[in-house]
Amino acid sequence: MKQKVTIVKVGGAIVEDPAKLAQFLQNFSTIKGNKLLVHGGGRRATKIAAALGIESKMVNGRRITDAGMLEVVTMVYGGLVNKNIVACLQAGGVNALGLTGADMDVIRSRKRPLKDGIDFGFVGDVESTDGARLKDLIEQSITPVMAPLTHDGQGNMLNTNADTIASEVAKVMSKFYDVTLIYCFEKPGVLADPDDNNSVIPTITQVDFERYVAQGVIAGGMIPKIENALRAVKAGVSRVIITLATAMDGEQGTVIKA
Amino acid sequence: MKQKVTIVKVGGAIVEDPAKLAQFLQNFSTIKGNKLLVHGGGRRATKIAAALGIESKMVNGRRITDAGMLEVVTMVYGGLVNKNIVACLQAGGVNALGLTGADMDVIRSRKRPLKDGIDFGFVGDVESTDGARLKDLIEQSITPVMAPLTHDGQGNMLNTNADTIASEVAKVMSKFYDVTLIYCFEKPGVLADPDDNNSVIPTITQVDFERYVAQGVIAGGMIPKIENALRAVKAGVSRVIITLATAMDGEQGTVIKA
Repeated sequence: MKQKVTIVKVGGAIVEDPAKLAQFLQNFSTIKGNKLLVHGGGRRATKIAAALGIESKMVNGRRITDAGMLEVVTMVYGGLVNKNIVACLQAGGVNALGLTGADMDVIRSRKRPLKDGIDFGFVGDVESTDGARLKDLIEQSITPVMAPLTHDGQGNMLNTNADTIASEVAKVMSKFYDVTLIYCFEKPGVLADPDDNNSVIPTITQVDFERYVAQGVIAGGMIPKIENALRAVKAGVSRVIITLATAMDGEQGTVIKA
Repeated sequence: MKQKVTIVKVGGAIVEDPAKLAQFLQNFSTIKGNKLLVHGGGRRATKIAAALGIESKMVNGRRITDAGMLEVVTMVYGGLVNKNIVACLQAGGVNALGLTGADMDVIRSRKRPLKDGIDFGFVGDVESTDGARLKDLIEQSITPVMAPLTHDGQGNMLNTNADTIASEVAKVMSKFYDVTLIYCFEKPGVLADPDDNNSVIPTITQVDFERYVAQGVIAGGMIPKIENALRAVKAGVSRVIITLATAMDGEQGTVIKA
């Protein structure tokens, strides 16, 4: 039987709030067994870019990364956010190691080509992830803490979506481990009634998903999120959980299953 | 016989100049065998702090690190400078891993107490360095790239002088390796005549050093630099070389020996 690993993704809304982040990291520290953290930091980057007089341009919720913005995200994601998380985890007894894709060449990507005429700039689409290297670290009781940055193998850092990094890492790790991927989120799970936090749908399979979409229960931005989760499950990830950042015990939230 | 390791320290003047940095990294890549890089970045931090409206305060050449400046150095050293160096080394076939002291708890420090009434702020004096962990990485053909940042084990990053990190790492590595520590510098070595770059003193021992100081040949800021190098040599480092960033073959510059 494969050993278990828990991969948690935490986004910018928690990362930018010191009290919420501290609470989140304390909860993360209590996860038993092998674990790995992927973090965002977009809101922090937007603020620091603004303070430097660099405007944040977004298209369909995705950041356009010009040369100035690449410097900002490299600083903020790879330095400020990543190292403070690592230091906090160390204080909580978790032997964390901050990584970008460039470090030990763990995630290599390719600069995104023009898409529908839009130049996203220095954004990297993941080409390969070195799961064996991450496994080696985990076997040494190290907890990788991954920033949403990759590299192209030609000396350039590239900005890469944290959700994507989490699912790519989960997929490659599923070769070696029984993987649970937890997306931390501002709601307690996928809700049957968007206005009722007590209406969490406990489990969603491909068949359930199609039915919920047909019924209009699942709509809008939740559709691509769950499609992405189902793709991870089909690629070998045992389960994907969408839950609150304060509820990472694997017992709460919505479980996406094959 | 112990295996060899070369530890190179490169400072802010090279780090801030993209062409010089690229040339330096190419030279570093050609160093045969085990190696480790320690970098500075103070000039870049000063520029970005200024762009953010944060004033750099220096006392005796040392930076006062208040809370705002700690964020800047964490971003710039741990993110911008470190990750760009790692990406460039990867492009040159060197399997680099960027580290601060917090990552895998490799360097723990203590916030500097008031000194002569001066509060240096969030500056860390090194307390312990995990040489065995660095050795493990090197044995996996990984080249650690160390930013001048440490942590206090209680969740706080601290700013730590890059020369100090280089000598502390060299000292602990000397338990396992025959260590050469190279300080890259803007001159070809310690000069007998400061106006003549051809007057490099090839070797300096403790006895030579005392004679040169008595003669006035070695003076000013070079005195603490060589004292520090002699301390490293006495602590087991085989040799310390002070040389140009373009001359890291171990055959050029001034060798400080026991």
